[in-house]
Amino acid sequence: MTALRRSPERIRLPLGFSFSAVAAGIKVSGRPDLALVEVWGRPCVGTGASPVQAERSSAVAGGASAAALFTTNRVVAAPVEVGRASLHSTGGRVRALVVNSGNANCATGRAGIKACERVCREAGKLLGVPAAEIFPSSTGIIGVPLPAEKIHAKLPELIAARSASERGVRAFAHAIMTTDTRPKIASARFRVGSQAVTVLGIAKGAGMIHPQLATMLVYLFTDVGASARELQPLLGQACDQSLNCMSIDGDTSTNDTVLLLASGASGARVRDLRTRKKFSAALSAVCQSLAEQIVSDGEGVQHVIRLFVEQARSREEALQVARTIAHSMLVKTAWAGADPNWGRILAAVGRCGLPIDPSRVQILIGRQKVCHNGIACPFNERQAHRDLAQPVCDVRVQLGRGPRSVRFLTTDLTAEYVRINADYST
Amino acid sequence: MTALRRSPERIRLPLGFSFSAVAAGIKVSGRPDLALVEVWGRPCVGTGASPVQAERSSAVAGGASAAALFTTNRVVAAPVEVGRASLHSTGGRVRALVVNSGNANCATGRAGIKACERVCREAGKLLGVPAAEIFPSSTGIIGVPLPAEKIHAKLPELIAARSASERGVRAFAHAIMTTDTRPKIASARFRVGSQAVTVLGIAKGAGMIHPQLATMLVYLFTDVGASARELQPLLGQACDQSLNCMSIDGDTSTNDTVLLLASGASGARVRDLRTRKKFSAALSAVCQSLAEQIVSDGEGVQHVIRLFVEQARSREEALQVARTIAHSMLVKTAWAGADPNWGRILAAVGRCGLPIDPSRVQILIGRQKVCHNGIACPFNERQAHRDLAQPVCDVRVQLGRGPRSVRFLTTDLTAEYVRINADYST
Repeated sequence: MTALRRSPERIRLPLGFSFSAVAAGIKVSGRPDLALVEVWGRPCVGTGASPVQAERSSAVAGGASAAALFTTNRVVAAPVEVGRASLHSTGGRVRALVVNSGNANCATGRAGIKACERVCREAGKLLGVPAAEIFPSSTGIIGVPLPAEKIHAKLPELIAARSASERGVRAFAHAIMTTDTRPKIASARFRVGSQAVTVLGIAKGAGMIHPQLATMLVYLFTDVGASARELQPLLGQACDQSLNCMSIDGDTSTNDTVLLLASGASGARVRDLRTRKKFSAALSAVCQSLAEQIVSDGEGVQHVIRLFVEQARSREEALQVARTIAHSMLVKTAWAGADPNWGRILAAVGRCGLPIDPSRVQILIGRQKVCHNGIACPFNERQAHRDLAQPVCDVRVQLGRGPRSVRFLTTDLTAEYVRINADYST
Repeated sequence: MTALRRSPERIRLPLGFSFSAVAAGIKVSGRPDLALVEVWGRPCVGTGASPVQAERSSAVAGGASAAALFTTNRVVAAPVEVGRASLHSTGGRVRALVVNSGNANCATGRAGIKACERVCREAGKLLGVPAAEIFPSSTGIIGVPLPAEKIHAKLPELIAARSASERGVRAFAHAIMTTDTRPKIASARFRVGSQAVTVLGIAKGAGMIHPQLATMLVYLFTDVGASARELQPLLGQACDQSLNCMSIDGDTSTNDTVLLLASGASGARVRDLRTRKKFSAALSAVCQSLAEQIVSDGEGVQHVIRLFVEQARSREEALQVARTIAHSMLVKTAWAGADPNWGRILAAVGRCGLPIDPSRVQILIGRQKVCHNGIACPFNERQAHRDLAQPVCDVRVQLGRGPRSVRFLTTDLTAEYVRINADYST
């Protein structure tokens, strides 16, 4: 693979989900900022029936099994608190997802929790399900009260607009964007016998942040059958190799959420070993594609670096080295200049906190070795510069300590990043 | 104090040291790049005698007691290895200090060690002292062989030029500069009875780095009498509050060195409690001034932030919070725009790794509280913007966890920093 995957042309829809978005006036720009995904027993495509009524008839059996991962930040936004508690109380059951952009509902105290709960309650009423089965997300400015009344006013329109269509998916993906320059969608399909199983992922995130606009949100939808308990480890594994192995600026949002919903509508079950293996691979591929789309849309990013840290004693050790390199402003600014300045990479390795012996460290840029056993070695500097000037370049750091490795996606740090993030916003 | 101290007009010279610098052709610019400090039994001012001869006569009694702190990076430059070993073998005795700029002699392997040892040997021969009493330092590009022959060729001229004068101090301070835009000098004098004791500090550092030009070097000279064993804890204390409490970009150089030399020429001894207390205060004041000079000369820096982290359980805890805030690219870019974006500061506090309760966190910008118990509180945004637009602004973060605090000097992250560090250099 020499180029990162962009949002693919073809979107494959899992059975059991419908999507919609509207503009509720939360974003000053007037762009769509309120989005919904509703889980059905079977897809809602082109029926003449009122969607709300059609849905109600399957309400008892409806809903998806859910697994989720949240920000590790101690400062968490109201929807993260509410969503986590709801998943706990329902045992991982979600009937609908309501996301607003333009306001993070973070650092808003007790009032923020109440506003979030009210949105869930109103949406639950309209869909005829308990508030705890409505999963909330918010992304946008921190510290500003959530305009809950604007959301309530638009919920009926949002629900009426939902459809199990590519158009619905694209509308949802656009409405959750903040500083993203493009929507992020990935999907995969596999067959087990006569059954087709689909995984669809939609994400936002480009920074982690713009002035007070935070967050990576990732939603994964599948029609495989699985309990919440079965889903959680599968989600963890898929994210460990992808969404947990990337960094743009090292900052962690207060709202980061990854949610996986399984409708079971395909008839295939992860209880079956063959299905589980194929599902796991498809889920990982979708997460990896979303990670690449997020990184390559990073704020001010000119170059994506695929950083391979190899020959570590453990995966944790490899990650520690990768994060230190990926967060070094000196390394990232050198990459912005396509400068094969391996001394900065070596210096970052040296300060990562591990007892690394520099005389065993090798560094490669593109296909060339630029540092051998911790010291300079001859290389074609023009070629290294050309490699780093590509949209994507591989950098490889070998520690000479063990057999483990990690692949980490990161970016350069450009003057444009500073400009985007330094605009006086308040 | 509302402004940071710049290099003062008046330089006070401690007894027993002479200074010089020459251009040895290591820097491409042809600027001075080789500097010397020699320790005398008494100052060498305007004598007609050949300096080398005059020095030899006091060689037996000569030399200073030394204490030093080095980089914590696992990748260390040859002069750091050689200097550390020499201090160990001599029990902390230094007769002269030889510093070159323009080449870090780092990642140069065994050949780099030999080149460094050769410089010490040649300087020792010319001064009539063992090579181990010559303390070496290098700063500049990483991974390029040290041009030792250029240094040897200039050593006689360097030694002949030395003088215990303000001119000598300024020449030394200029010659050790790399990306610094100005020399960094601070001095303090106190009296104990009839004796005057002086502390002089000279530093370089502005980044930590420019393309492959690294390092903070700090040299402290005093005429107080002290053993190496007495000096080391005094140096540690002074640095903990100053040079260890600042950050420009979070990167740690491979060559960082702080060296304290005590000639004893004043007659006062730190063994005396009153002298020790006054000396300790003077040393701290000099280190603090140098720290402020380094930070305000940081690459691309527009605003210096005095970050006070208060109400921590321990000093280490306060430092951990301060470093996380000071290294956050989002916080630093907000400061570049004079943007009172406290949400980013709170989010950095939340991800620092400590179990901090956001609902007990207060944040102040200038004199205004901008975040109360982890949530927004009304404040004059124009005033906060004006405060942050000053060359120096105080930011205060209160954790509500305990009685300890720390004062940490840091900077904004500007597009100019990126430009300086992204220039294609190799």
